[in-house]
Amino acid sequence: MNTEDFRKHAHELVDWMADYFENVEDYPVLPDIQPGDIFKQLPTEAPTSAESFDDIFKDFKDIIMPGITHWESPNFMAYFPANKSKASVLAEMLMSTLGSQCMIWLTSPAAAELEESVMNWVRDMLGLPKTFTGVIQDTASTATLCAILTARERATQFSVNEKGFEQQKFTVYASAEIHSSIEKAVKIAGIGAAQFRPIRVDENFAMLADQLEKTIEQDISQGFIPLCVVSAIGTTSTTAIDPIAAVSKICLKHKIWHHVDAAYSGTALVLPEMRWMSEGVETADSFVFNPHKWMFTNFDCTAYYVKDPVSLVNTFTITPDYLKTSVDHEVKNYRDWGIPLGRRFRALKLWFVIREMGVEGIQNTLRKHITLGKWLATEVIKHPDFELMAPVPLNTVCFRFTKGPEDQLDQLNEQIMNNINKSGKLFFTQTKLYDQFTLRLCFGNTNLEAYHVENAWQLIQDTAAALKQE
Amino acid sequence: MNTEDFRKHAHELVDWMADYFENVEDYPVLPDIQPGDIFKQLPTEAPTSAESFDDIFKDFKDIIMPGITHWESPNFMAYFPANKSKASVLAEMLMSTLGSQCMIWLTSPAAAELEESVMNWVRDMLGLPKTFTGVIQDTASTATLCAILTARERATQFSVNEKGFEQQKFTVYASAEIHSSIEKAVKIAGIGAAQFRPIRVDENFAMLADQLEKTIEQDISQGFIPLCVVSAIGTTSTTAIDPIAAVSKICLKHKIWHHVDAAYSGTALVLPEMRWMSEGVETADSFVFNPHKWMFTNFDCTAYYVKDPVSLVNTFTITPDYLKTSVDHEVKNYRDWGIPLGRRFRALKLWFVIREMGVEGIQNTLRKHITLGKWLATEVIKHPDFELMAPVPLNTVCFRFTKGPEDQLDQLNEQIMNNINKSGKLFFTQTKLYDQFTLRLCFGNTNLEAYHVENAWQLIQDTAAALKQE
Repeated sequence: MNTEDFRKHAHELVDWMADYFENVEDYPVLPDIQPGDIFKQLPTEAPTSAESFDDIFKDFKDIIMPGITHWESPNFMAYFPANKSKASVLAEMLMSTLGSQCMIWLTSPAAAELEESVMNWVRDMLGLPKTFTGVIQDTASTATLCAILTARERATQFSVNEKGFEQQKFTVYASAEIHSSIEKAVKIAGIGAAQFRPIRVDENFAMLADQLEKTIEQDISQGFIPLCVVSAIGTTSTTAIDPIAAVSKICLKHKIWHHVDAAYSGTALVLPEMRWMSEGVETADSFVFNPHKWMFTNFDCTAYYVKDPVSLVNTFTITPDYLKTSVDHEVKNYRDWGIPLGRRFRALKLWFVIREMGVEGIQNTLRKHITLGKWLATEVIKHPDFELMAPVPLNTVCFRFTKGPEDQLDQLNEQIMNNINKSGKLFFTQTKLYDQFTLRLCFGNTNLEAYHVENAWQLIQDTAAALKQE
Repeated sequence: MNTEDFRKHAHELVDWMADYFENVEDYPVLPDIQPGDIFKQLPTEAPTSAESFDDIFKDFKDIIMPGITHWESPNFMAYFPANKSKASVLAEMLMSTLGSQCMIWLTSPAAAELEESVMNWVRDMLGLPKTFTGVIQDTASTATLCAILTARERATQFSVNEKGFEQQKFTVYASAEIHSSIEKAVKIAGIGAAQFRPIRVDENFAMLADQLEKTIEQDISQGFIPLCVVSAIGTTSTTAIDPIAAVSKICLKHKIWHHVDAAYSGTALVLPEMRWMSEGVETADSFVFNPHKWMFTNFDCTAYYVKDPVSLVNTFTITPDYLKTSVDHEVKNYRDWGIPLGRRFRALKLWFVIREMGVEGIQNTLRKHITLGKWLATEVIKHPDFELMAPVPLNTVCFRFTKGPEDQLDQLNEQIMNNINKSGKLFFTQTKLYDQFTLRLCFGNTNLEAYHVENAWQLIQDTAAALKQE
């Protein structure tokens, strides 16, 4: 493809992209397809000869688009949003054009220095301590793995890296409501899931600090070495807020690495009125949140902060001859700050988004989302046929339909969810609270307005009422 | 930013992008800046109010662009290329617009099914066994970590995952020329760098199979459990080709996981005449190569193939309630095939690239690159003042200037490289062979023509001659 062909096709794509943004609500949020429906339309072999871009783009529209779940739609209220914004998409266009490979300073100096700068901006926007140093990672799963590995190495003076496990029996702690990536990291690091200690939670689904301390002391008495506590600002099911200050105190006392997982909810710390969530974070060792979830920045973009970057770098550093440069002593070579060697120019999109929205613009949108969460929580509480299943500190609402015999409620609620998701009008997901099937809606889409939430609530009530009559 | 503003700015960007492609050779390949030059131009705090996109884009051009290393330039001959193509950039535009989060089938059915289909295409294009199943990962570093973790778990019936390390003393083997990511993975997996065995290489920098077997047998006699051999199709320094068939045989005999790292050179297997490199791959357990290096696809896009996907999935699987879906038993949920949970829609760009170039188009470009490598190798051999330092099986050429006292040659060659890189006309890097500073040029850029290589060679000769006269 020559440059003029590219120019022509890229302009065509821009119009399609803008139209998509304009009309995204016309698509069913969840596509009405069965496993294999897309696969069977695709040829089993790669084409020998070049195909025209018009044909490729046509297939994209005809074959791929009918199988897309529309994360861009404001009626997408499932999971956590993979939030983004138009400024972020514009940045991705430039990123892909430059194709910068940001493994070391020399391979993209502007990217390294913009990353350092923007990570400082974000740290200050969230009110994190000035002693924290940031680096962009791909996902919170990877960042949490980095935290646990750094904790492992700091605790053993880097001897697991060098000699492998000997007799160490480490333990890792987190609330029973913590994200599954913590246990995954515990496995990868060679610690073993049996040494992962899920700590009981209170009625708000927040970790019980006294249970944590009791478990730690029990482990110590049995010869375990408590390695790391992962506390959550916003768990995945209900966005519960663990008591960061109390956990920090326990970790300081026992010299345990304290990693704060704020993957989704961390963005809300941009709001001064939400800073109560992070009280005590000053003494934590590491903190992660995903601008690609609720800070309007395309996936992937995870912000990982550490108090002791030297330990992080020493955990991962490699310097083969072919990667040495003359400025290694005076620059940040981010290849040593995580697992992959290659890195995209992700700082650019975060820079575009923050500048295009301004801190106030981000704050206003977050406040709108949180207000909508509170509104639905109030509606649910008021409604005789529904029950709120968890507190709503932010914009994620967990509730269930309760009109019916208790032993049929799981099935009824699942039916409500499936019927609605199949309609294409709305997509939300479930969780389990008190071992009960729970509807879960999250309001974090960039384009979300009050009427989307009102419509969703109406649709849920209508669907439940219709099922009740059957 | 509303849709019409987006449309306007995106069209502006497309024209800038097309102009960049057209004029990329006008930029110095390596920017002439010092550490801190970009950072000091950036405000220390995020803006409170929104800024206009015109201002943001202006700063991109004025502040960021002067600090960019131009991986897109055909005069970029450093490292391995982060190759890409215009079709790939077009795909990235659509990917960022959809913002699909491809963790499970339900969250983007078309992405999951396209990934399965395109991974089959690529497997067959490379002549890999039909028994291999593919998945897209971010980088080869991560894929290799997956291989070593899966080997660890298969060897212990998943007991390290469950119970942690007990008394196991694993060993991992690779050529002394292998990429640094192997040792990094050995550390992360808790095996310990001391149990990494770099195996001696022959005069072609390929692993000595008999040395491998001797080391394995020695380890067994000392109570170690040989876990994994990583062989290279194309090492990083010189693209040396390890004897895959011989290694496979040894691995089969001793029941050791055989992982083939073809990160850069794997793409060349699209050429039937290069298939000798992968002879014996049928019995390997896993194979990785990066379409984002030499297959014209934007970073990140790593193709990872395994013979036993069940072991891979069992190593990483997690199924919390909030991720369960009704189709889990009949679809591929790629979240379980690697480390991060979140995943971009990377199959799309690979699909665009393969179709837009066709297999023949890819083959023709690869053949051109390999011919240029052979041409420079011949020129170097013919020249009395230069010495070829390694065989050139593909398109990476390692050589040095030899006119001068031996104890000054390292410095002289480094000077040649630095002078040229500073000129902005060309960017290449070094490696060390026989403990000697070695110039290393790689010809894999999408837009590379013969005259770029001829000019590079002339520039190196001229720079060396000028230094000699000083």
